[in-house]
Amino acid sequence: MTKYESYKSRLARIADLGYTMALQGWDQETYMPEKGADFRAQQTATLSGMAHEMSVDKELGDLLKKLSKKKDLTPKQKRNIEESLKDYKESKKYTTEFVEQLSRVTSECFQAWQKSKKESNFKLYAPHLTKMIDLKRKEADILGYKKHPYNALLDQHEPGATVDQLDVLFKDVREQLVVFVKKIAAAKQNDDSFAYKNYNKDKQWNFGIELLKQMHFDFEAGRQDISMHPFTTNFSPQDVRVTTKVIENNLKSMIWSCIHEGGHGLYEQGLPSSEYGLPLGEAISLGIHESQSRMWENNVGRSLPYWKANYKHLQKYFPAHLKNVSLDHFYKGINLVKPSLIRIEADEVTYHFHILVRYEIEKLLMEGKIKVNELPEFWNEHYMKYLGVKVKSDAEGVLQDVHWSHGSIGYFPTYSLGSFYAAQFFHQANKDIKGLQKNIEEGNMLPLLNWLREKIHRHGKFYSAEDLCKKVTGEKLNFKYFMNYAKDKYSVIYNLK
Amino acid sequence: MTKYESYKSRLARIADLGYTMALQGWDQETYMPEKGADFRAQQTATLSGMAHEMSVDKELGDLLKKLSKKKDLTPKQKRNIEESLKDYKESKKYTTEFVEQLSRVTSECFQAWQKSKKESNFKLYAPHLTKMIDLKRKEADILGYKKHPYNALLDQHEPGATVDQLDVLFKDVREQLVVFVKKIAAAKQNDDSFAYKNYNKDKQWNFGIELLKQMHFDFEAGRQDISMHPFTTNFSPQDVRVTTKVIENNLKSMIWSCIHEGGHGLYEQGLPSSEYGLPLGEAISLGIHESQSRMWENNVGRSLPYWKANYKHLQKYFPAHLKNVSLDHFYKGINLVKPSLIRIEADEVTYHFHILVRYEIEKLLMEGKIKVNELPEFWNEHYMKYLGVKVKSDAEGVLQDVHWSHGSIGYFPTYSLGSFYAAQFFHQANKDIKGLQKNIEEGNMLPLLNWLREKIHRHGKFYSAEDLCKKVTGEKLNFKYFMNYAKDKYSVIYNLK
Repeated sequence: MTKYESYKSRLARIADLGYTMALQGWDQETYMPEKGADFRAQQTATLSGMAHEMSVDKELGDLLKKLSKKKDLTPKQKRNIEESLKDYKESKKYTTEFVEQLSRVTSECFQAWQKSKKESNFKLYAPHLTKMIDLKRKEADILGYKKHPYNALLDQHEPGATVDQLDVLFKDVREQLVVFVKKIAAAKQNDDSFAYKNYNKDKQWNFGIELLKQMHFDFEAGRQDISMHPFTTNFSPQDVRVTTKVIENNLKSMIWSCIHEGGHGLYEQGLPSSEYGLPLGEAISLGIHESQSRMWENNVGRSLPYWKANYKHLQKYFPAHLKNVSLDHFYKGINLVKPSLIRIEADEVTYHFHILVRYEIEKLLMEGKIKVNELPEFWNEHYMKYLGVKVKSDAEGVLQDVHWSHGSIGYFPTYSLGSFYAAQFFHQANKDIKGLQKNIEEGNMLPLLNWLREKIHRHGKFYSAEDLCKKVTGEKLNFKYFMNYAKDKYSVIYNLK
Repeated sequence: MTKYESYKSRLARIADLGYTMALQGWDQETYMPEKGADFRAQQTATLSGMAHEMSVDKELGDLLKKLSKKKDLTPKQKRNIEESLKDYKESKKYTTEFVEQLSRVTSECFQAWQKSKKESNFKLYAPHLTKMIDLKRKEADILGYKKHPYNALLDQHEPGATVDQLDVLFKDVREQLVVFVKKIAAAKQNDDSFAYKNYNKDKQWNFGIELLKQMHFDFEAGRQDISMHPFTTNFSPQDVRVTTKVIENNLKSMIWSCIHEGGHGLYEQGLPSSEYGLPLGEAISLGIHESQSRMWENNVGRSLPYWKANYKHLQKYFPAHLKNVSLDHFYKGINLVKPSLIRIEADEVTYHFHILVRYEIEKLLMEGKIKVNELPEFWNEHYMKYLGVKVKSDAEGVLQDVHWSHGSIGYFPTYSLGSFYAAQFFHQANKDIKGLQKNIEEGNMLPLLNWLREKIHRHGKFYSAEDLCKKVTGEKLNFKYFMNYAKDKYSVIYNLK
């Protein structure tokens, strides 16, 4: 075996464990009976420990160092080694003591969050979240960073992302998007009451499967199931699992979770199997992953051409509910813009204000400029400022999301990055693909999928997010594409000047 | 950590991998999309290799040897160490070379079997099966045995079982059961055409779930899904998965696969969680496992009291098909005894002739007294002799089952052992539990389940199969219980004297 083959084989074994843990997770969210949880947690912990040992194995480190000095590697091999060495070095920075401490604090913090949210009592959560933030600041020091400690954490979710970059983007959100939403709020509101009648669950499910098929989600290399919170996971590019949620009196939930997760799923199915377990077989970043789900969900799935293709079919599924709802009525109803309290229920425009508030908080926390017990006040003030809504309880305010209790700091911004990348990529796709809007209108999603496969999916981690964006669109990420998309679309919908 | 705790923790880690492989297997048979197979095989192989390494680790061996000399262990701890040391020593007997050779030959043999069955051409299979048998004879030598090489292989599936024991049992089958079936064959045949109408699949499924609930299968610690071939697996006693098969024009398939797998499932759910990963947390043997499934399936699930409890309910599910079928008609129809070619479709009586033929063949193969290419002739002759049926093609003859191609020799007899143990246990249960037949007639399965929990399930591997049988019934396994059960039941059904 050559050194490179030996590296590939080691990484494949680590991936075998990682993907098996993904299977354990999938089963847990879809089918596992409740009493199975304790032993499942133990089984996952065992695999996780073994995978960790293998990824910090000194022999792997030595191999990677030797390979990184080799001159005769192909560019792809070089990139794999570069990324793997980076991962290896990062992993080695953590002491066992720190990892154990983080795991303990996370578990306590999560439990405190659950109780605290249930009782809408932030005080129960505050001491645990404080410990978590202290650890995260320590983690930033352990990892090292330039300029801002938050950069170290951002890099874990969105390699290469920095406060400098995000400050520019979120300044635009604050200055341009907030103003635009105020104009929308002043306009005449549209009706979406048709979406909240009793929609038979089986029919909803079948319609969702048809949408996935239309997107060319490969059901021989994947499947869809039901879970409490929709998600996508995969055990190889040949086995990609998406989930959805079907609610009887909410047609929207199923449709756009299907399309969203389908977008994630197409990315995973498009990664090269030949690079299994290697960086080039993996997604670039959470932001790029999210760009795929959001492009399908919003830029495609909430567009007029998409519903020109699919609305008649949906009417056939639910004639009693929709026969008197025109396409125009439907299209406007599925595109309401309305500031609200809960992030996961937000429309595609005001969504970014939710992220903006979290971004500002996370930055301040990492700088040590705000204390955990000041968060509810800050939160409520900024929800009023950006969204114009009054937060009545912490449960529907600062406590609404689980992520911080898991220690996910630097993660929320990737959601906004996803939308912004999506807008910029989709703008380019419309330039590159002749008649794309017409294709979509005819239900032909293949030209777009092929473009995504060619430009994005097949490369895995070969390019950084920034380089990919430049290569595909000719410039780095620029908020104007999202802003223009929103303006163009919603000026028509809301009849703005 | 004490030495015993350190042993427990090592075994728990091995079990974590083993149960995770069971999850991979379950997913593969139930939900995995077809393209997922290759990477899944690789992932399972990786886990399997790691689990094997851990179970032959010299440190584990040293620990077991030390523990086996300790005087202050409880009887349960002593049994655990005894069994684990036995497993360890057996595992150490295999060289890596032999394991790899067996794995390669198995893979080739399985592929040859598939092709050969498809084309009903035994010749394609013969050279591969010959290699397999040679390896199995070598394996018997590696493992060591007293008296007969077949004993070494039997012991893998049914610890303690021997040719001496089985010869006695199968002599009874040959001499008593064959004669009895001839009497049945001469009697007036009953009608079961009602079972082959169009039975709505969803309704069948719902009825099956109700049967499982009536058996007290714990759906918080388990679930049922659909698979091609029904099976039971588990990831802990708290997470037991049974599967069934629902065929539209065959009501029997779903009902008795449900009850059968439910019986296996109850055994797994009844094993002690406190002994997770240790011998005392595991089933005694395949034969004892099968005794649980077959007791529920046949002694209970094909009995008149059981259908006194459930038939009206079934009629309500399918009034159009069953309203004119009386309970007596139904009961006789679900208990047809009719020699046939295919083992998995056989009734509970003639079933054992299928096993008898296989037992005779396996013994001869292990003795080197029959050659693989002589098998079709031997098979067909003996199917005529014991079952009175003419085998028209090898596909529905010697090629019908996959097991030999997997290297499972010494496995088939456990099916018959299961039925025989079931009859003997059930006979005892009727003596121990006052009004058991009445309980069943009222749909109250709890007294029987509690008896099984108390007498069998909770002990795990504490007793050997033979000792358990003596402890529960006062004597070792005796064919007369099965024979009497069959005579009592079928003399009434077929109106024999």
